[in-house]
Amino acid sequence: MKQKKFILQEHEIPTHWYNIQADMPTKPLTPLHPKTRKPLSPDDLSHIFSKECSKQELDTVNSWIEIPEEVREKYTYYRATPLVRAYALEKALGTTAHIYFKNESTNPLGSHKINSAIPQCYYCKEEGDTNVTTETGAGQWGMALSYAAKLYGLEAAVYQVKITLQQKPYRSIAMRTFGATVEGSPSMSTRAGKNIITREPNYPGTLGTAISEAIELATTTPGCKYTLGSVLNHVGLHQTVIGLEAEKQMEMAGEYPDKVIACFGGGSNFGGIAFPFMRHLFDRSHANTEFIAAEPASCPKLTRGKFEYDFGDEAGYTPLLPMYTLGHDFKPANIHAGGLRYHGAGVIISQLIKDGYMHGVDIPQLESFQAGLLFAQTEGIIPAPESCHAIAATIREAKKATEEGKSPVILFCLSGHGLIDMPSYDSYINGDLRNYRLSDEEIEESLKRIPR
Amino acid sequence: MKQKKFILQEHEIPTHWYNIQADMPTKPLTPLHPKTRKPLSPDDLSHIFSKECSKQELDTVNSWIEIPEEVREKYTYYRATPLVRAYALEKALGTTAHIYFKNESTNPLGSHKINSAIPQCYYCKEEGDTNVTTETGAGQWGMALSYAAKLYGLEAAVYQVKITLQQKPYRSIAMRTFGATVEGSPSMSTRAGKNIITREPNYPGTLGTAISEAIELATTTPGCKYTLGSVLNHVGLHQTVIGLEAEKQMEMAGEYPDKVIACFGGGSNFGGIAFPFMRHLFDRSHANTEFIAAEPASCPKLTRGKFEYDFGDEAGYTPLLPMYTLGHDFKPANIHAGGLRYHGAGVIISQLIKDGYMHGVDIPQLESFQAGLLFAQTEGIIPAPESCHAIAATIREAKKATEEGKSPVILFCLSGHGLIDMPSYDSYINGDLRNYRLSDEEIEESLKRIPR
Repeated sequence: MKQKKFILQEHEIPTHWYNIQADMPTKPLTPLHPKTRKPLSPDDLSHIFSKECSKQELDTVNSWIEIPEEVREKYTYYRATPLVRAYALEKALGTTAHIYFKNESTNPLGSHKINSAIPQCYYCKEEGDTNVTTETGAGQWGMALSYAAKLYGLEAAVYQVKITLQQKPYRSIAMRTFGATVEGSPSMSTRAGKNIITREPNYPGTLGTAISEAIELATTTPGCKYTLGSVLNHVGLHQTVIGLEAEKQMEMAGEYPDKVIACFGGGSNFGGIAFPFMRHLFDRSHANTEFIAAEPASCPKLTRGKFEYDFGDEAGYTPLLPMYTLGHDFKPANIHAGGLRYHGAGVIISQLIKDGYMHGVDIPQLESFQAGLLFAQTEGIIPAPESCHAIAATIREAKKATEEGKSPVILFCLSGHGLIDMPSYDSYINGDLRNYRLSDEEIEESLKRIPR
Repeated sequence: MKQKKFILQEHEIPTHWYNIQADMPTKPLTPLHPKTRKPLSPDDLSHIFSKECSKQELDTVNSWIEIPEEVREKYTYYRATPLVRAYALEKALGTTAHIYFKNESTNPLGSHKINSAIPQCYYCKEEGDTNVTTETGAGQWGMALSYAAKLYGLEAAVYQVKITLQQKPYRSIAMRTFGATVEGSPSMSTRAGKNIITREPNYPGTLGTAISEAIELATTTPGCKYTLGSVLNHVGLHQTVIGLEAEKQMEMAGEYPDKVIACFGGGSNFGGIAFPFMRHLFDRSHANTEFIAAEPASCPKLTRGKFEYDFGDEAGYTPLLPMYTLGHDFKPANIHAGGLRYHGAGVIISQLIKDGYMHGVDIPQLESFQAGLLFAQTEGIIPAPESCHAIAATIREAKKATEEGKSPVILFCLSGHGLIDMPSYDSYINGDLRNYRLSDEEIEESLKRIPR
């Protein structure tokens, strides 16, 4: 019987996160203070984030950062996650490629987001905070944060993008089940939200807007810190447990990936699986691995955006980040992969693309769901709409390999399952979904509003 | 760091199912043909079920039945499942008890049902069938059957209890995602369904009615076999992979359960975890383990039903089964634990209760959700409403142990997660749920209609 899953025991869960910033041949440019335009220091961040996360954010020196014992103990609740050989998918494709996926959908919260929610809440608690707040798109980060806050006895307030709150009501119920407060964003509870609603009452919301609201709450509420589920360096850092486990598991399988693929919204899932393998590009021990970030065609910052200093949020509260962006007030179409509806890429990822270590591909919505359906009917897992993008990119690579008579080893990250996203599958099966492709003029128009 | 999860590798997945019928000191009474009232033979069953399942159903000789290699290979897609020590729940309860749970919620279909769906479809395919049909309550069995059918290239038609189809629309979308056809039951597509709708147009449906419809379809469609997700002996047999794995895992933890607890609808989850441990009652190697089946107070066949020959379905198509029953046309209240809304207990379980090897407890709906919420906020897993009953029974036992200053080892089965059942949590959090307790007169009235 062929081995399907490669399983680690709890004591094999990584003891350190991998900080790619320390090893990058070209360091990312430093974020700038939004008012002074001077390079940011940890102190500039620590009135918003926990001190420890602020430090991690700008650490370009230490390659390995120890995972606190108490965080590792909480990781044992659902880690290590399995590495799986996708035999049934391979067979359905008739491909010569070897396809593996790291299955982050097995954890009880349904996605990889919990890997960073736990340490972020842990540090807040350790530093004496009582409340946390955040934004969430599809709701996966919001669910993870709500549970992690409860673990440490913190109160959580979550701003969920209004369109996904409506499309996926189950996730907000789950957040409330864990004891959190949930607001649809834009909301009337912040100045940033009110301004938008006044201009456009039916605005469906974006991650950028929700971020503005949560930051406003954190900076105006004593004892309340802001937490973020993607984009930032410390989030990608925490997520490297994914890739570090996968590296050991690929070794158990006796293979090494020729291609590493993940979906791309802000970069947390992609960085999580990719960064640990990328260090072998830098040290030249595996110099030929290809890294592919699968973004939605309707929000193509990696493939059609511009590398500029831009805000991380709609209202312009965040530092100016050097990144590939479509403009901070870009309004992505209402695709079902809510977690990928974000205008910019993280600072590290942006530098890695600029330096040619990785690249993006853009996946139309219908192709993503077609891939998801095939994956469900073969591997038995209904993937999150976000993860469907990684699967679609994997299928493209597998088909190409078959045509070329090659057998590359492809590793992709299944960021989460889609059991709470069933209405999107309903729409797809019923033929109600469509693709969204932006014209060059639309993108030009949005890029004009980047601050200079 | 204390070990949280006890993990088996794929090669440790059981090679045989455990057939408790062979070892029971008193064999269960034989089911009777509904027309002739003569003891049933495998041939009487095999026009409805696959031949192999019909044989397994009445096998009282072989204690161990080999799992076909191809079924074991499919089990590797999601098994072995973890055994977990519920440290966080123990801490929240301040209990002296040791609480373990076998986590069947980690599989991609969200519940234990797939363990029997795979072999049932495998045997149908091997025997040349092209179609399968079934009933489903909460939709967990329907999802599992839909995927298993797709695995073997069979067409699947699922009758889902109408009330749960409405309460939990996501599960029917999931079944359609796997390629199945789904009908709300009672439907107009069968004689059994039409008869009921004619009498009572708004009838919310029960498992009993849906079973009648699926059997009617199977017996009137060439190449189509009926499959069942619970109640029958061969289903409990397939589910023993749960308990057999748990037995090895408890050994890894260095403990043996003093109490084994599972929720109870028709008996598939309970039998799955309990039967392998019960064989040590019979051989006296662990003679003091207590076995507790947690049923809903609104459908109390174990605690308030009668041991009689009764039909397994509403319309009277099935054999007469010797079982604890509330009467085959008993109409349970519309509780959210749809998988537990069934009037009778399986034949094996009924005999085991009669002989004093196990007993039932009845759990009110509000107590079940209170337990589920605490479990979610501690262990991070939102349990299925069915599983909440097992958790509530576990909490009762843990509290009793603490009061008595004892430290029993409690093992319960988490049959599935509740991510697709979020509306029920919404109702609970909003205070919209209630308890249902039947009067003795109501039960008497229903029992009168048992055929004699």
